[in-house]
Amino acid sequence: MRKFNLVLITLIMLTWGANALSDSASVDYPTDYRSWQHVKTMVIQPGHPLEDPFGGIHHIYANSKAMAGLSSGTYEGGAVFVFDLLSYVNSDQVIVEADRKRLDVMQYNPDQFSATGGWGYETFVGDSRTERWEQDVVTACYACHIPAKASNYVYSQYRP
Amino acid sequence: MRKFNLVLITLIMLTWGANALSDSASVDYPTDYRSWQHVKTMVIQPGHPLEDPFGGIHHIYANSKAMAGLSSGTYEGGAVFVFDLLSYVNSDQVIVEADRKRLDVMQYNPDQFSATGGWGYETFVGDSRTERWEQDVVTACYACHIPAKASNYVYSQYRP
Repeated sequence: MRKFNLVLITLIMLTWGANALSDSASVDYPTDYRSWQHVKTMVIQPGHPLEDPFGGIHHIYANSKAMAGLSSGTYEGGAVFVFDLLSYVNSDQVIVEADRKRLDVMQYNPDQFSATGGWGYETFVGDSRTERWEQDVVTACYACHIPAKASNYVYSQYRP
Repeated sequence: MRKFNLVLITLIMLTWGANALSDSASVDYPTDYRSWQHVKTMVIQPGHPLEDPFGGIHHIYANSKAMAGLSSGTYEGGAVFVFDLLSYVNSDQVIVEADRKRLDVMQYNPDQFSATGGWGYETFVGDSRTERWEQDVVTACYACHIPAKASNYVYSQYRP
Protein backbone atom coordinates (compact mmCIF):
# COMPACT_ATOMS: atom_id res chain seq x y z
CA MET A 1 0.00 0.00 0.00
CA ARG A 2 2.85 2.32 0.88
CA LYS A 3 4.43 1.49 -2.50
CA PHE A 4 1.12 2.19 -4.28
CA ASN A 5 0.84 5.58 -2.52
CA LEU A 6 4.36 6.45 -3.55
CA VAL A 7 3.59 5.63 -7.19
CA LEU A 8 0.36 7.61 -7.01
CA ILE A 9 2.04 10.63 -5.47
CA THR A 10 4.82 10.44 -8.06
CA LEU A 11 2.26 10.28 -10.87
CA ILE A 12 0.35 13.25 -9.47
CA MET A 13 3.55 15.25 -9.16
CA LEU A 14 4.64 14.35 -12.69
CA THR A 15 1.24 15.34 -14.09
CA TRP A 16 1.27 18.58 -12.14
CA GLY A 17 4.82 19.26 -13.28
CA ALA A 18 3.98 18.62 -16.92
CA ASN A 19 0.96 20.92 -16.72
CA ALA A 20 2.97 23.62 -15.02
CA LEU A 21 5.63 23.33 -17.72
CA SER A 22 2.98 23.40 -20.43
CA ASP A 23 1.25 26.44 -18.93
CA SER A 24 4.39 28.42 -18.35
CA ALA A 25 5.77 27.58 -21.77
CA SER A 26 2.89 28.93 -23.87
CA VAL A 27 3.62 31.68 -26.35
CA ASP A 28 1.37 34.75 -26.17
CA TYR A 29 -0.61 36.12 -29.09
CA PRO A 30 1.28 39.30 -30.04
CA THR A 31 -1.71 41.64 -29.71
CA ASP A 32 -0.19 44.83 -31.09
CA TYR A 33 2.38 43.43 -33.50
CA ARG A 34 1.03 45.38 -36.50
CA SER A 35 2.38 48.55 -34.90
CA TRP A 36 5.80 47.02 -34.27
CA GLN A 37 8.84 47.67 -36.42
CA HIS A 38 8.57 46.23 -39.91
CA VAL A 39 11.91 44.46 -40.42
CA LYS A 40 11.67 43.09 -43.96
CA THR A 41 9.44 41.36 -46.50
CA MET A 42 9.77 38.38 -48.84
CA VAL A 43 7.56 36.62 -51.38
CA ILE A 44 7.71 32.81 -51.63
CA GLN A 45 6.15 31.68 -54.90
CA PRO A 46 4.70 28.37 -56.16
CA GLY A 47 7.41 25.79 -56.75
CA HIS A 48 9.71 27.07 -54.01
CA PRO A 49 10.87 24.29 -51.65
CA LEU A 50 9.20 26.12 -48.74
CA GLU A 51 5.94 26.73 -50.60
CA ASP A 52 4.21 24.34 -48.23
CA PRO A 53 3.52 25.89 -45.75
CA PHE A 54 5.27 29.23 -46.31
CA GLY A 55 4.06 30.20 -49.79
CA GLY A 56 2.83 33.79 -49.83
CA ILE A 57 4.05 37.25 -48.98
CA HIS A 58 5.45 37.49 -45.48
CA HIS A 59 6.43 40.41 -43.33
CA ILE A 60 8.72 40.20 -40.32
CA TYR A 61 7.87 42.43 -37.36
CA ALA A 62 9.93 42.91 -34.20
CA ASN A 63 9.03 44.42 -30.83
CA SER A 64 11.50 46.86 -29.26
CA LYS A 65 13.41 44.13 -27.39
CA ALA A 66 13.75 42.08 -30.56
CA MET A 67 14.99 45.16 -32.43
CA ALA A 68 17.58 45.73 -29.68
CA GLY A 69 18.65 42.10 -30.10
CA LEU A 70 19.00 42.45 -33.86
CA SER A 71 21.43 45.31 -33.23
CA SER A 72 23.38 43.86 -30.31
CA GLY A 73 23.27 40.18 -31.24
CA THR A 74 21.97 39.16 -27.82
CA TYR A 75 18.37 39.00 -26.66
CA GLU A 76 16.63 39.63 -23.39
CA GLY A 77 13.47 37.91 -22.18
CA GLY A 78 10.37 39.28 -23.86
CA ALA A 79 11.89 39.78 -27.30
CA VAL A 80 9.34 38.73 -29.90
CA PHE A 81 9.48 38.30 -33.66
CA VAL A 82 6.41 37.79 -35.83
CA PHE A 83 6.35 36.14 -39.24
CA ASP A 84 3.09 37.39 -40.77
CA LEU A 85 2.17 35.24 -43.77
CA LEU A 86 -0.45 36.49 -46.23
CA SER A 87 -1.67 34.87 -49.40
CA TYR A 88 -1.50 37.08 -52.48
CA VAL A 89 -3.05 37.61 -55.88
CA ASN A 90 -0.58 37.85 -58.77
CA SER A 91 -2.45 39.31 -61.72
CA ASP A 92 -1.70 41.83 -64.48
CA GLN A 93 1.91 42.10 -63.33
CA VAL A 94 1.09 43.23 -59.84
CA ILE A 95 1.20 41.25 -56.59
CA VAL A 96 -1.44 42.32 -54.08
CA GLU A 97 -1.78 41.12 -50.50
CA ALA A 98 -4.79 38.93 -49.65
CA ASP A 99 -5.99 36.89 -46.67
CA ARG A 100 -3.74 36.01 -43.76
CA LYS A 101 -2.61 32.37 -43.82
CA ARG A 102 -0.84 32.14 -40.47
CA LEU A 103 1.04 34.11 -37.87
CA ASP A 104 4.24 32.54 -36.60
CA VAL A 105 5.64 33.87 -33.35
CA MET A 106 9.10 33.50 -31.77
CA GLN A 107 9.14 34.60 -28.14
CA TYR A 108 12.39 34.69 -26.17
CA ASN A 109 12.55 33.45 -22.62
CA PRO A 110 15.61 31.31 -21.91
CA ASP A 111 14.13 29.80 -18.73
CA GLN A 112 10.77 28.82 -20.17
CA PHE A 113 12.04 27.64 -23.53
CA SER A 114 15.45 26.21 -22.73
CA ALA A 115 14.66 23.04 -24.71
CA THR A 116 14.39 25.04 -27.95
CA GLY A 117 17.29 27.44 -27.71
CA GLY A 118 15.51 29.93 -25.44
CA TRP A 119 12.79 30.67 -27.98
CA GLY A 120 9.19 29.55 -27.78
CA TYR A 121 7.45 29.01 -31.10
CA GLU A 122 3.77 29.20 -31.92
CA THR A 123 1.54 29.42 -34.97
CA PHE A 124 -1.83 31.14 -34.93
CA VAL A 125 -4.13 30.02 -37.74
CA GLY A 126 -5.32 32.70 -40.19
CA ASP A 127 -6.54 35.78 -38.33
CA SER A 128 -7.34 33.87 -35.15
CA ARG A 129 -5.85 35.08 -31.87
CA THR A 130 -6.69 31.84 -30.09
CA GLU A 131 -6.57 28.98 -32.59
CA ARG A 132 -3.10 27.51 -32.38
CA TRP A 133 -1.78 25.20 -35.05
CA GLU A 134 -1.31 21.65 -33.76
CA GLN A 135 2.37 21.01 -34.22
CA ASP A 136 5.51 19.64 -32.65
CA VAL A 137 7.41 22.90 -32.43
CA VAL A 138 10.72 21.09 -32.07
CA THR A 139 10.47 19.50 -35.49
CA ALA A 140 8.25 22.13 -37.15
CA CYS A 141 10.10 25.23 -35.95
CA TYR A 142 13.20 24.75 -33.86
CA ALA A 143 14.87 22.21 -36.17
CA CYS A 144 14.84 24.71 -39.05
CA HIS A 145 16.22 27.48 -36.84
CA ILE A 146 19.19 25.47 -35.54
CA PRO A 147 21.39 26.42 -38.53
CA ALA A 148 20.98 30.06 -37.39
CA LYS A 149 22.33 29.28 -33.91
CA ALA A 150 25.24 31.70 -34.41
CA SER A 151 22.73 34.56 -34.66
CA ASN A 152 20.69 33.26 -31.71
CA TYR A 153 18.40 31.21 -33.97
CA VAL A 154 17.20 34.37 -35.73
CA TYR A 155 17.31 34.40 -39.53
CA SER A 156 16.14 37.94 -40.12
CA GLN A 157 18.49 40.83 -40.49
CA TYR A 158 17.12 44.34 -40.29
CA ARG A 159 16.80 45.93 -43.71
CA PRO A 160 17.17 49.71 -43.15
CA MET B 1 14.26 107.34 -60.97
CA ARG B 2 11.29 107.00 -58.61
CA LYS B 3 9.64 104.64 -61.15
CA PHE B 4 12.85 102.57 -61.39
CA ASN B 5 13.00 102.30 -57.59
CA LEU B 6 9.38 101.16 -57.47
CA VAL B 7 10.08 98.46 -60.07
CA LEU B 8 13.21 97.38 -58.18
CA ILE B 9 11.39 97.18 -54.86
CA THR B 10 8.55 95.26 -56.47
CA LEU B 11 11.01 92.80 -58.01
CA ILE B 12 12.81 92.33 -54.70
CA MET B 13 9.51 91.71 -52.90
CA LEU B 14 8.36 89.24 -55.55
CA THR B 15 11.64 87.35 -55.37
CA TRP B 16 11.50 87.30 -51.58
CA GLY B 17 7.90 86.19 -51.69
CA ALA B 18 8.64 83.35 -54.10
CA ASN B 19 11.54 82.18 -51.95
CA ALA B 20 9.42 82.33 -48.82
CA LEU B 21 6.73 80.26 -50.52
CA SER B 22 9.31 77.80 -51.80
CA ASP B 23 10.89 77.47 -48.35
CA SER B 24 7.63 77.06 -46.51
CA ALA B 25 6.31 74.59 -49.07
CA SER B 26 9.18 72.12 -48.91
CA VAL B 27 8.46 68.59 -47.76
CA ASP B 28 10.66 67.26 -44.96
CA TYR B 29 12.68 64.06 -45.18
CA PRO B 30 10.76 61.64 -42.92
CA THR B 31 13.70 60.80 -40.67
CA ASP B 32 12.18 58.01 -38.59
CA TYR B 33 9.67 56.58 -41.06
CA ARG B 34 11.05 53.03 -40.80
CA SER B 35 9.63 52.84 -37.29
CA TRP B 36 6.21 54.10 -38.39
CA GLN B 37 3.21 51.88 -38.95
CA HIS B 38 3.56 49.55 -41.91
CA VAL B 39 0.26 49.95 -43.78
CA LYS B 40 0.59 47.54 -46.70
CA THR B 41 2.90 46.23 -49.43
CA MET B 42 2.64 45.66 -53.17
CA VAL B 43 4.92 44.36 -55.92
CA ILE B 44 4.82 46.03 -59.36
CA GLN B 45 6.45 43.78 -61.93
CA PRO B 46 7.97 44.34 -65.38
CA GLY B 47 5.30 45.07 -67.99
CA HIS B 48 2.93 46.79 -65.58
CA PRO B 49 1.76 50.22 -66.83
CA LEU B 50 3.36 51.85 -63.76
CA GLU B 51 6.63 49.96 -64.11
CA ASP B 52 8.35 53.23 -64.97
CA PRO B 53 8.98 54.62 -62.39
CA PHE B 54 7.20 52.45 -59.78
CA GLY B 55 8.45 48.97 -60.65
CA GLY B 56 9.65 47.16 -57.53
CA ILE B 57 8.38 46.17 -54.11
CA HIS B 58 6.90 49.08 -52.20
CA HIS B 59 5.84 49.49 -48.62
CA ILE B 60 3.50 52.18 -47.35
CA TYR B 61 4.27 53.65 -43.93
CA ALA B 62 2.13 56.14 -42.01
CA ASN B 63 2.95 58.32 -39.02
CA SER B 64 0.43 58.48 -36.17
CA LYS B 65 -1.48 61.44 -37.65
CA ALA B 66 -1.73 59.69 -41.01
CA MET B 67 -2.97 56.53 -39.27
CA ALA B 68 -5.62 58.61 -37.48
CA GLY B 69 -6.63 60.03 -40.87
CA LEU B 70 -6.92 56.57 -42.41
CA SER B 71 -9.39 55.69 -39.68
CA SER B 72 -11.39 58.92 -39.53
CA GLY B 73 -11.22 59.93 -43.20
CA THR B 74 -9.95 63.43 -42.37
CA TYR B 75 -6.37 64.54 -41.86
CA GLU B 76 -4.71 67.09 -39.67
CA GLY B 77 -1.55 69.04 -40.48
CA GLY B 78 1.55 66.93 -40.06
CA ALA B 79 0.08 63.69 -41.36
CA VAL B 80 2.70 61.96 -43.51
CA PHE B 81 2.65 58.89 -45.74
CA VAL B 82 5.76 57.30 -47.20
CA PHE B 83 5.90 55.15 -50.33
CA ASP B 84 9.18 53.25 -49.93
CA LEU B 85 10.18 51.71 -53.25
CA LEU B 86 12.83 48.98 -53.34
CA SER B 87 14.13 47.06 -56.28
CA TYR B 88 13.99 43.29 -55.90
CA VAL B 89 15.60 40.08 -57.07
CA ASN B 90 13.18 37.43 -58.35
CA SER B 91 15.09 34.16 -58.51
CA ASP B 92 14.36 30.50 -57.72
CA GLN B 93 10.73 31.33 -56.97
CA VAL B 94 11.49 33.81 -54.24
CA ILE B 95 11.32 37.62 -54.36
CA VAL B 96 13.89 39.29 -52.13
CA GLU B 97 14.19 43.01 -51.39
CA ALA B 98 17.20 44.85 -52.82
CA ASP B 99 18.37 48.47 -53.11
CA ARG B 100 16.08 51.40 -52.47
CA LYS B 101 14.99 53.14 -55.68
CA ARG B 102 13.16 56.14 -54.25
CA LEU B 103 11.22 57.40 -51.29
CA ASP B 104 8.01 59.26 -52.10
CA VAL B 105 6.54 61.40 -49.36
CA MET B 106 3.03 62.92 -48.96
CA GLN B 107 2.92 65.54 -46.22
CA TYR B 108 -0.35 67.17 -45.24
CA ASN B 109 -0.58 70.88 -44.56
CA PRO B 110 -3.62 72.51 -46.15
CA ASP B 111 -2.18 76.05 -45.85
CA GLN B 112 1.21 75.32 -47.35
CA PHE B 113 0.03 72.96 -50.06
CA SER B 114 -3.38 74.32 -50.99
CA ALA B 115 -2.50 74.19 -54.69
CA THR B 116 -2.20 70.39 -54.55
CA GLY B 117 -5.14 69.39 -52.40
CA GLY B 118 -3.43 70.14 -49.10
CA TRP B 119 -0.68 67.59 -49.64
CA GLY B 120 2.94 68.35 -50.43
CA TYR B 121 4.75 65.75 -52.50
CA GLU B 122 8.44 64.98 -52.68
CA THR B 123 10.71 62.24 -53.95
CA PHE B 124 14.07 61.46 -52.36
CA VAL B 125 16.43 59.60 -54.68
CA GLY B 126 17.63 56.17 -53.56
CA ASP B 127 18.79 56.25 -49.93
CA SER B 128 19.55 59.98 -50.00
CA ARG B 129 17.98 62.21 -47.36
CA THR B 130 18.83 65.36 -49.26
CA GLU B 131 18.79 64.60 -52.98
CA ARG B 132 15.33 65.49 -54.23
CA TRP B 133 14.10 64.31 -57.58
CA GLU B 134 13.62 67.19 -60.03
CA GLN B 135 9.96 67.08 -60.90
CA ASP B 136 6.82 69.08 -61.37
CA VAL B 137 4.86 67.63 -58.48
CA VAL B 138 1.58 68.83 -59.95
CA THR B 139 1.91 66.63 -63.01
CA ALA B 140 4.15 63.92 -61.49
CA CYS B 141 2.24 63.37 -58.25
CA TYR B 142 -0.90 65.42 -57.69
CA ALA B 143 -2.51 64.64 -61.06
CA CYS B 144 -2.45 60.90 -60.32
CA HIS B 145 -3.91 61.44 -56.84
CA ILE B 146 -6.88 63.53 -58.02
CA PRO B 147 -9.02 60.42 -58.71
CA ALA B 148 -8.67 59.62 -54.98
CA LYS B 149 -10.09 63.02 -53.95
CA ALA B 150 -13.02 61.36 -52.16
CA SER B 151 -10.54 59.75 -49.75
CA ASN B 152 -8.55 62.97 -49.38
CA TYR B 153 -6.18 62.05 -52.22
CA VAL B 154 -4.99 58.98 -50.33
CA TYR B 155 -5.04 55.64 -52.18
CA SER B 156 -3.88 53.39 -49.37
CA GLN B 157 -6.25 51.60 -47.09
CA TYR B 158 -4.94 50.07 -43.93
CA ARG B 159 -4.57 46.32 -44.23
CA PRO B 160 -5.01 44.91 -40.68
